Order: sequence, then C-alpha cells, then structure tokens
Amino acid sequence: MAAPVEVDGLTLDAETVALDRAHVFHSWSAQARVAPLVVAGGSGSTVWDHAGHTYLDFSSQLVNTNIGHQHPRVVEAIREQAGLLATIAPATANLTRGRAAAAILGHAPDRLTKVFFTNAGADAVENAIRLARLHTGRDKVVSHYRSYHGNTGAAVVATGDWRRVPNEYARGHVHVFGPYLYRSEFWATALEEECERALRHLERIVQCEGPDSVAAILLETVPGTAGVLVPPPGYLAGVREIADRYGIVLILDEVMAGFGRTGEWFAFDAHDVVPDLVTFAKGVNSGYVPAGGVLISSQIAATFDERVFPGGLTYSGHPLAMAAIVAAIGAMEDEGIVENAAAVGRDVLGPGLAELAERQSLVGEVRGTGVFWAVELVADRATREPVAPAVMGAVRAACLARGLLPFVADNRVHVVPPCVVTPDEAREGLALLDEALTEVTTDL
Amino acid sequence: MAAPVEVDGLTLDAETVALDRAHVFHSWSAQARVAPLVVAGGSGSTVWDHAGHTYLDFSSQLVNTNIGHQHPRVVEAIREQAGLLATIAPATANLTRGRAAAAILGHAPDRLTKVFFTNAGADAVENAIRLARLHTGRDKVVSHYRSYHGNTGAAVVATGDWRRVPNEYARGHVHVFGPYLYRSEFWATALEEECERALRHLERIVQCEGPDSVAAILLETVPGTAGVLVPPPGYLAGVREIADRYGIVLILDEVMAGFGRTGEWFAFDAHDVVPDLVTFAKGVNSGYVPAGGVLISSQIAATFDERVFPGGLTYSGHPLAMAAIVAAIGAMEDEGIVENAAAVGRDVLGPGLAELAERQSLVGEVRGTGVFWAVELVADRATREPVAPAVMGAVRAACLARGLLPFVADNRVHVVPPCVVTPDEAREGLALLDEALTEVTTDL
Repeated sequence: MAAPVEVDGLTLDAETVALDRAHVFHSWSAQARVAPLVVAGGSGSTVWDHAGHTYLDFSSQLVNTNIGHQHPRVVEAIREQAGLLATIAPATANLTRGRAAAAILGHAPDRLTKVFFTNAGADAVENAIRLARLHTGRDKVVSHYRSYHGNTGAAVVATGDWRRVPNEYARGHVHVFGPYLYRSEFWATALEEECERALRHLERIVQCEGPDSVAAILLETVPGTAGVLVPPPGYLAGVREIADRYGIVLILDEVMAGFGRTGEWFAFDAHDVVPDLVTFAKGVNSGYVPAGGVLISSQIAATFDERVFPGGLTYSGHPLAMAAIVAAIGAMEDEGIVENAAAVGRDVLGPGLAELAERQSLVGEVRGTGVFWAVELVADRATREPVAPAVMGAVRAACLARGLLPFVADNRVHVVPPCVVTPDEAREGLALLDEALTEVTTDL
Repeated sequence: MAAPVEVDGLTLDAETVALDRAHVFHSWSAQARVAPLVVAGGSGSTVWDHAGHTYLDFSSQLVNTNIGHQHPRVVEAIREQAGLLATIAPATANLTRGRAAAAILGHAPDRLTKVFFTNAGADAVENAIRLARLHTGRDKVVSHYRSYHGNTGAAVVATGDWRRVPNEYARGHVHVFGPYLYRSEFWATALEEECERALRHLERIVQCEGPDSVAAILLETVPGTAGVLVPPPGYLAGVREIADRYGIVLILDEVMAGFGRTGEWFAFDAHDVVPDLVTFAKGVNSGYVPAGGVLISSQIAATFDERVFPGGLTYSGHPLAMAAIVAAIGAMEDEGIVENAAAVGRDVLGPGLAELAERQSLVGEVRGTGVFWAVELVADRATREPVAPAVMGAVRAACLARGLLPFVADNRVHVVPPCVVTPDEAREGLALLDEALTEVTTDL
C-alpha cells in the first residue's frame, strides 16, 4: 500500500482550496456554501490530504471506486495505454476497445451481444432511451420517482428525485412508485404485498398511458442514491412480464449497482430477470478514466444493422478508458473482488449494521446487500419521520472528525466502501459510524 | 517521433476487426455498413495500423487531436497523475483541477471567471443551456440550423442538422439560419449583405418567439461539422448586440473551434465579441482523456452563490483529464502551437487550397482559417449542386489509398490536421488531396 506523503502539505492544501474557490464551479451545489475536503491521494479504501490526514473511504467517492483507490494493475494499464495510443476516433477499430467489450459481455447474459460505449452514466441512459424509442417506434419512458439516472436532457427527466424538477425540458417521461416497504406508497404491510401492489401500480400506469406509446421501462436494478432500495423477490421478474406483455423494452440502469457493488457482477444476477438494455459506468473501471455504455440485446442491435443509429460521441470507446476496463475486470476476476464484496456484506456489514440498528435509536432501518447499504435515520421510530438536515450535517462532521468518509443522502448514511474493503476495515468503519451516531444522539 | 511497430501486425489487425464487428456498436452508423480503419498507434500528425501502414492525419480524428498524437508532455502528465490519483469525487477540492481551471481561464476574457467541468462537449452544452435558463428564468434556446452541439437530450435538439430530427424529445429549441454566402438563405450576393441579413433574420425570429422567452443564443463560433462556416466580420458582434438588447445569454460553442484550431486560443478572439458562457472539449486536452466544460461569466456564476445549481456529474473535474489539460495548455504555450496553426493556415493551407480550387473543377469553394478548412465539392460550379455521396466515397477511398486520412462531411472534405502539423506535412497532404481529386474527376 502506498502511504500518504507530506510535502509542504498545509501549503498545498491551502493552494488547492484557494484555486477551487476562485475558479471551480461545483456540481449540485450553492457555490458559496461549498467547503470541499481536499484529497491528495489514496490507496485501497483510504484517502488522504496533502498534510497526511487519512480517511477510511466508506463512500467509494460517488460509489464508483469499486476496486479501491490506485489499484496497481489498473494504474499500470492506463500508463501503458497512454504510452501506446491515448485517443482515437470511434469510427476506427481499436484492439483495446474490442477487448473491453468482450470482457464486459463475458459477464452478461447471452442475450446481450453488443456494447455502445459512452463517457459516463448519463449519456449511457440517453443512448439506451434512444435505442428503445427507435426500436419500438414509441416515445414514452416509464421510470421510478425514487431514482437517479444522470444530469443530461433525457436522463435528468427520467430521474425521479428533486433534481428533475428544475430541468424538465424533455418530453415523454412518466414516473411510477417502486417497492419500498419502509415507506410504502401502497399501504402495504408485508414485503410480498408491497411487491404485488407495486407491480399492479406499474401495470395500471402503463395501461393508462397507453401501452402502445411506451417505449421503455427504465429502472435502476437497485435504486442507489434514492436509498439502496433492493427490490423484493419477484419484482423485477414481474416488471419483465409486464414489459413483455406490452412489447416494451426493459432497460436496467446498473451505473451504480453493477460490477460488484451488490456482490454480483450485475445486480440483476440476483434476480430472475434478463433486461434488453443495460446501462453501466462507475464500477466498470472504477471511474479511473471516464467511461460508460449500454449493453444491447442482439434483437435491438439488429434494428440498426441497415438503419443508421442517430447517436454518437467523440470519445466513444476511448482507448484509455477501455484499457482501464480490461484491467479492472481482469483484476476483479483474478482477485475475487466481487466475491469479497458479497462476503463482506454477508459476514460483516449485514450483521454489523443490524446490531447498530438495535443499539442506535436514530436508526429507522438498515437495508442492502454486498457493499451497498443504507442506514436510514429517523427522528421518531414510530412515525419514521426523517431526521432534519442539520442532524445529517452533524453525523457527517462526526464521521469526518473520526477519519471516516461517509456517503450522506437525504436522511441516510450509505455504507458503500470499495468492493476490496477488508473485513477489518469494514468493522473499523462500522465502529466509527457507531461512535459518530452516539455523539450526535447525545448532543440532540 | 515514435515509429510504427510491426508485431504480428496482420494478425492483430484481424483480431481487432473481428472483435469490433462482433461486439462494438458504432456511433452514427448502420452497423452492418461499418468498415472501420484499424489504428494501432500514432505520433504527431501520423497514425498507423498494426501492420505498419501509415496515414497522414488530416482529420485530427474528430477534429480533436490539436497537439497531435502522443505528445510526450501530455502522455507523461497522464502517466504521472495516474500514479498519484486517477479519480476523485467532484465535491472534493483537487489541486490539478484548480490548476486546469486557472490554465484555461488564463486565455479567456476577464468576464469569464469560473469553470464547470464535464466529460465532453455534449454535456458541456447541456449545462450551459441549464445555466442560461436558470439565470434568465426563460426557456427557449436559439441556435443555427447549420450546427452540431452533441448527442444528448438538449444538445442534440439544439443541433440543427439531420441528427436532430430522429431525436426531438426536448422542448424550447428554435433554429435560425446563419451567414453562409456560398449558399445564402437570404438572397444575398455580397458578404456584408449576407451578414446584415443574417442579423436581421436572427433578430426577427427572437422578436417573433417573444424576447422574454429566450434564455440563450447558442452558436458555434465557427460552425464546424456543418462546413467550417467562418462568420463574416461583424456577425458575432451583431449577435452580441441582439443578445444584450433583449437580456439574452450568449453561449459560444468552442468544442471544435477552440484551443488553437482557428489559429487563436478561442475562435472568438478573432471577432469583436465576449460571450457569457463558452463550451469547450476536444482541443482543451486533445481528447487524450475525455473532458469538456463551460466557462462561466462572474455574473452568471453569482446567480448560483446561494442557490443550488441543479446539475452535476461523477467525473466533473476528473484528475486524469485535468492533468492532461494542464500539460496540453502548457505545451501549446511553450511550443507556440497556436501560432503554428495560424502560420500554417496563412502560409500553406490558405494559398494551397486557393490554388487547388482553381485547378480542380470539382471544387466549388474553399474557406477557413488556421488549421480549420473546408473544401466544398460540387457537380456543377454554376448551380453549386453538391456532388453525390458516391463521389465523396470515392474521394475518401482515393485519399486513404495514398496514405491520407481525410475528414469527410456531406459534400465536403475538411482539411483539419493537428495544430502541430508542419508546413511540409501540410504541403504533402494538399498534394495527396490534389491527386485524389484528379483521380476521382478522371473517373467520373
């Protein structure tokens, strides 16, 4: 493991913050309220600033560094490809690109035969929607209110959460509720009931919208930023049946859930379903080089054998990104990283979070799988009223003060370390979170 | 200069094509019609396949490798940053990101003070439109019919050309004609008249759409793929006046035109205009790592000091992309690459293409600046009827057969070598193009 290096540390931290505040405009933020953490380097599940302060990364940044920070095999592959050929136009054929496509498809169901590479998740979703619309000749896209699909034109309007509302300049989007028993929209009291009612709700909306107008049902396999909402058994299979009944394309968004996060290569592997299109990004190469894409069924791909596909981008199948994909997937295979995520979830995070939920009165529910968990904090366990934003701010601060970098969303702490997290690191992170919650509860 | 290496060349070429045809879905193509060129490596203005066949790159791929292939300083910066910290979340502060922002802003007018980093040009345009809409509280975006702005939701509908039509799922877009004397939409016969009429047309459309509903005028400073349509003197200054008259944000899209392509750092430097927002990608780091962004005026940035900006992305300000930006801009400064582009345009490409136009009966018009030129081919110089697509296919094939990699769009060959192209390489490329045109003309 590389160690944090302190070289003029405090000076560099100050320069970093000064340049950032002067010139960098930040995502999803009021710019005057941005108080960024400085990160100078990282290794595995740890990051540090220029002065050498370290943090255990329980966020995987934006839930993308599945192989951890600075995995040597992926770093070396990027360095090698940079020396060979950094960039090339998408209309050419490139060996690394072909190998990346084959490596991804090697873990996918046989129905999926081609890959369209994009720069990230948002444009993967844009192009999946485009493929579905042109394949079906229909226009509407049905997605969940509790979802996030990206920040561009169609992707942000397919998104269900608040980020959609100021951005509603795309047409053809319809939203439904998904299963979420803890805060059921269907007055359900048991998981099976929640599942049945969610499916009934989805099918009724499709019927009312006019099935012949619905191109796609677009769902995160496990809605991520919306709360790690692992679907109940049978939900996705039921969605597949509805899609088939009405000739609708099923797009599963695996940008956050895919490539080990749930303890499976694809999150849908744990469910009885094969989608027509799959969007991916993040974990495919842990974000070491920006990349995303769409896995395409042979049937949909064939629609564009003789017909021009009207979508594309300069950096589609970028060699540097492709080299990082080949290396990341190779490392995950050879080092059992997906299996590690499953084991840590089963043996440490699952039981540990269940205990924490018993001990900590702020915790309303914990849920998840693999290295993909949400801890939902409530002001009142009976009413399930979310804690106030100030409480989440205090939790975040208490975690950071202890050297734990958490992922905070709404009233939840998501426990989403890299898939390479060791059992000891997972236990350590849970202990720090436990302390942080105790401190905040005491201060309330 | 690195040399092409032949190692099992033909075998690797075959493997590359086989993997590509089996698994890679291509941009803007009918998949069964894709016959990709294999590119194994490159250096400066040259690329080669695995068998060692070389091509003089007069395309800069997709007009992005402004510093040429495999510039050692940028390759080294990527390798160094990969070893230090490949990826980090956008909410952190990162030294390389701050330095990249400062490097870009160092070449921009004082009015532009912040940078929002994206993955490429399309999402740069998406976010520029978002900034304009939220800053003005208006929704419409006026852009040119002859334009390309990217392949995602809003960007592809802002696009004017055929790629928009199958993708019209965004609202709030209005298109106008820009100045293009050779194929005037305004019955103009002189450049000044074309300019005046284009401005009159733009203002009339703004008035008819309702000025209070127009958020932005979005233009490529020099429309690129649409035909390298260098605006006549006074056009952009006139657009600026119209924007100011009606409180409209002026967005200049410099994704293709920026960072040396026109012989200026920004294409608008040659025109009497300062925009409110500038989109960039491609040349900012020659596409060595996917990156794009928006330069933001202090006035628009201030709108989001206390108000949350509702846009963002995982790879905003990606360290690897940022390191490539810092190195590319440093190399361009230290090696006089922008000045070289200007000189090659003035001394070689401009005069050479003017000669070629006199000699070759297929050429209707040549136009451009720097290393950004279009050669428009016509079946009849009097009617200006474009040549048939088959003729363009023959021109492309004749160029490739001679070891020249051209950029072909509609009925045009764009002469768009890297900004580092030497005068000798530029002369050689023109000679090959000349031969190719002679061959095709003879065969007609």
